[in-house]
Amino acid sequence: MPDIKTAIILVHCPDQKGIIVAVGDFILKNGGNVIHLDEHVDAATQTFFMRVEWDLDGFGIATEKISEFFQTLVANRFDMIWRLYFSDAVPRMAIFVSKLSHCLYDLLSRCQSGEWTVEVPLIVSNHPDLESVARGFGIPFHVLPITPENKHEQEQQTFDLLQQHRIDFVVLARYMQVLTEDFVARYPNKIINIHHSFLPAFPGARPYHSAHERGVKVIGATSHYVTTNLDEGPIIEQDVVRVSHEDDVSDLVRKGRDVEKIVLSRAVWNHVRRMVLVCGNRTVVFS
Amino acid sequence: MPDIKTAIILVHCPDQKGIIVAVGDFILKNGGNVIHLDEHVDAATQTFFMRVEWDLDGFGIATEKISEFFQTLVANRFDMIWRLYFSDAVPRMAIFVSKLSHCLYDLLSRCQSGEWTVEVPLIVSNHPDLESVARGFGIPFHVLPITPENKHEQEQQTFDLLQQHRIDFVVLARYMQVLTEDFVARYPNKIINIHHSFLPAFPGARPYHSAHERGVKVIGATSHYVTTNLDEGPIIEQDVVRVSHEDDVSDLVRKGRDVEKIVLSRAVWNHVRRMVLVCGNRTVVFS
Amino acid sequence: MPDIKTAIILVHCPDQKGIIVAVGDFILKNGGNVIHLDEHVDAATQTFFMRVEWDLDGFGIATEKISEFFQTLVANRFDMIWRLYFSDAVPRMAIFVSKLSHCLYDLLSRCQSGEWTVEVPLIVSNHPDLESVARGFGIPFHVLPITPENKHEQEQQTFDLLQQHRIDFVVLARYMQVLTEDFVARYPNKIINIHHSFLPAFPGARPYHSAHERGVKVIGATSHYVTTNLDEGPIIEQDVVRVSHEDDVSDLVRKGRDVEKIVLSRAVWNHVRRMVLVCGNRTVVFS
Amino acid sequence: MPDIKTAIILVHCPDQKGIIVAVGDFILKNGGNVIHLDEHVDAATQTFFMRVEWDLDGFGIATEKISEFFQTLVANRFDMIWRLYFSDAVPRMAIFVSKLSHCLYDLLSRCQSGEWTVEVPLIVSNHPDLESVARGFGIPFHVLPITPENKHEQEQQTFDLLQQHRIDFVVLARYMQVLTEDFVARYPNKIINIHHSFLPAFPGARPYHSAHERGVKVIGATSHYVTTNLDEGPIIEQDVVRVSHEDDVSDLVRKGRDVEKIVLSRAVWNHVRRMVLVCGNRTVVFS
Repeated sequence: MPDIKTAIILVHCPDQKGIIVAVGDFILKNGGNVIHLDEHVDAATQTFFMRVEWDLDGFGIATEKISEFFQTLVANRFDMIWRLYFSDAVPRMAIFVSKLSHCLYDLLSRCQSGEWTVEVPLIVSNHPDLESVARGFGIPFHVLPITPENKHEQEQQTFDLLQQHRIDFVVLARYMQVLTEDFVARYPNKIINIHHSFLPAFPGARPYHSAHERGVKVIGATSHYVTTNLDEGPIIEQDVVRVSHEDDVSDLVRKGRDVEKIVLSRAVWNHVRRMVLVCGNRTVVFS
Repeated sequence: MPDIKTAIILVHCPDQKGIIVAVGDFILKNGGNVIHLDEHVDAATQTFFMRVEWDLDGFGIATEKISEFFQTLVANRFDMIWRLYFSDAVPRMAIFVSKLSHCLYDLLSRCQSGEWTVEVPLIVSNHPDLESVARGFGIPFHVLPITPENKHEQEQQTFDLLQQHRIDFVVLARYMQVLTEDFVARYPNKIINIHHSFLPAFPGARPYHSAHERGVKVIGATSHYVTTNLDEGPIIEQDVVRVSHEDDVSDLVRKGRDVEKIVLSRAVWNHVRRMVLVCGNRTVVFS
Repeated sequence: MPDIKTAIILVHCPDQKGIIVAVGDFILKNGGNVIHLDEHVDAATQTFFMRVEWDLDGFGIATEKISEFFQTLVANRFDMIWRLYFSDAVPRMAIFVSKLSHCLYDLLSRCQSGEWTVEVPLIVSNHPDLESVARGFGIPFHVLPITPENKHEQEQQTFDLLQQHRIDFVVLARYMQVLTEDFVARYPNKIINIHHSFLPAFPGARPYHSAHERGVKVIGATSHYVTTNLDEGPIIEQDVVRVSHEDDVSDLVRKGRDVEKIVLSRAVWNHVRRMVLVCGNRTVVFS
Repeated sequence: MPDIKTAIILVHCPDQKGIIVAVGDFILKNGGNVIHLDEHVDAATQTFFMRVEWDLDGFGIATEKISEFFQTLVANRFDMIWRLYFSDAVPRMAIFVSKLSHCLYDLLSRCQSGEWTVEVPLIVSNHPDLESVARGFGIPFHVLPITPENKHEQEQQTFDLLQQHRIDFVVLARYMQVLTEDFVARYPNKIINIHHSFLPAFPGARPYHSAHERGVKVIGATSHYVTTNLDEGPIIEQDVVRVSHEDDVSDLVRKGRDVEKIVLSRAVWNHVRRMVLVCGNRTVVFS
């Protein structure tokens, strides 16, 4: 990845003539150079999706004014829903965990090695088990136990922490709690979960037990944005691994862990590179 | 595959000491040479599964007496459920189709090229569309249309044909009809279906439409033995292929066809080589 | 696929500002509507690649004049290498085979079922073995045997046939002959081969034997454009399948066949949809 | 995995009648219960391979006498090459690293989480970069820099450390040094490497650069036992991931890392469970 500063716009709007030219013109006439442009039209809903990234070097509109100009000159005309990002803004990620460490290690080791440029200001858990993992990476670890009585209070504490640390998005790295509607509503398409099955097969609890009982020959994992419908949010990434009659439930759990961590990390990577657009209950993941 | 004549025994029974030695002894003491032996113990149900294949050259028990001797000398002692097959018996397969040709071509071209040693005495269809395909391979094609009124009668005609042609097993190559319980009961673990989804996700009709609507990133196909519960029989083989937001339903259908035909043919291949044991609603597929 | 008539332009040129806008403007100002636009910049060589497809309904430039106008108004300015295609032009494919039928069946059944809109005016073979397969599909089959003495003469006959039938591109469906440089030069990036290994591993003859001897755990197949360097042309598609110590060479051959036919058909499909651009010895395969 | 103590024997010998019965009898007559038995015959070399595992509870031969008895009563008769292992012996693994952390994290996090029961008494590196990773897991980290002059001396120091810590096997977790023949000879089939390509494609240095230049559509990783021929030792495990024209070398490196760590960990897991037999330059990996 070169060290240039770029702007990224993610857009969707009703499909109509002239969108690409209008956006391209906006960039070109102000001296920008398009580095990537991907578009997709969903034929069924006649929706246009685009991701465009351009080099800001020599761009004629000041960074803090791009939004205003784009809204006025382009977005209004096509009734666009859009977001602007800058490549030098480092996303701030909070990780929620319970007792399992494989996804947590996978996420943190990518941040530490420089594979990802992502800040992790804090880890939240309802159990103390993974505190030493967090300590190994030098990241503050907050234990906020959950009981039937304190659920809302615990979420409020969590939310305060996220606010205080200016968190951009949350990753549920095998966090074994269902978030309330209120909490989810505060982070629309900003909470990424990993479910340990190939959704929509085996939603809910103990999917590996169900997979074993059904006798499937392939198991999988699904990373999706969290919505208020459990395990039904927009899917970002899925993958699978073969299993056989020789695998008992513990083998499925073991093989599944590898898929879970890779699928979750791919989803997070796509999210932080601003590759993902959500429309209805589906995602467009540019490549 | 060498041209030797072998015997194959598929066994399952409660797990207990001495089974392998008893079976091995039975073969060894009568002058047989074990070519393959695979065993598996399902820990949860304490069930023992085995597939053993031995060279019959010089075997001291006459072919037609092996069953009797094995039952008396071995099977009784361990309360075995078992079957005996001979490698020189060519399985007789009937294929049921409707209007889609991809699985039919895949099956027939394997028989014709000599990849499989399987007889196909007849193809049955509720539509005339694929008659020319059957003719290209020189296989009798029986059109037996189905109406709400004639369903049982049509199945009886079909059954008569299967009997008359001494059919060993049936392959539903995208046959768009649900068989009655009566028919299914006549061919337990002998009717192989291909379902165009990754079961248990998207059972029933129009799975590609459902997959598209759900926004999955991987689609699949499942080959299973038909039972009286639709799409819930023991799974023999599954596989998947990646899809993206760029794929509309027709793309899923097209990509899915390739998985369907390969998965179905793998399942049939395992069935005809006597690699598959069914126990409850799961399969053991030896390799 | 809707029944609209579209134009497709495949372009590559040195990367520079304004290309997308120029092409988009050309389409927009003449009343066209872009259906797909994909671009890619190869950072190492600073080469710009684009595939754009637009609806011709209401387009202001007559079909037979589009080339001239595009060259003058757009291509000259950016030093473009480009090609124009129309979605209603049915590509004419010749298939070359020897003795193996699996790829041939896979290709022909897709044409026959309507999955592909491709004409197959003729099949050429150096052996008579597959004549009955061709007959089943009603396609003329030309047996042109090859000896050390008649190679050039045979190729000339073949070339005459291709000319006479106005063949657009050739598919080598496990054709066991090396084409001469002269022949290859006549169809640059228009001869598609399937090699039965994961290139660059195991080029040349008997790759499954080599794979077995090396003890690999995965085998594959590679579809590529034929160049004068054997098995070194631009790769269009590859895929793999797992194998184990239990697989002898005949098992690798059998498992490999499934990968070969699917990989070849995917490559042909991408070629006929005008998704493939060749640059140097690599391909850009739009999706 | 239940908490029972088992014995595991890995055997290979010329194929002959009666091996399975002889081994089964040895276990049965002394009161053992076979838990797993896998056998394989390599038809080309007529070699018999077997892995058998039995419950030692109530076994009539004392643990320290099993070797002597098995050699006398069984192995001599069939000219067996064999090894005996006990499930309660915890393997002692040394890890060699250079500067890349992804494989190291993957290995250590599996040991720490209890997924593997493996001791890691030390990590050796020719660079200090990963010392903090080792510290996070509380494992001694030995920096032994390598220069052209001190190579043999450094290896002797390394060997002394391995001896002193009674190391059973070594994992090269992207260790960027070629070991000398002397060193390799001391650990036959006990040094596991990960090579960042799909061998035999792209051996040696910079395989991702070569893969990019060749324009492959799939990249992979290979874990193998180290022999004196660089990148040519017996392959334990391989896997692949799709790439496209959109991936530059840095993308291949990033995608490849995920395959590398999973493939290496699968190979180590198979090694420590005593699933791998080496014969010539190929492995039998039981499942």
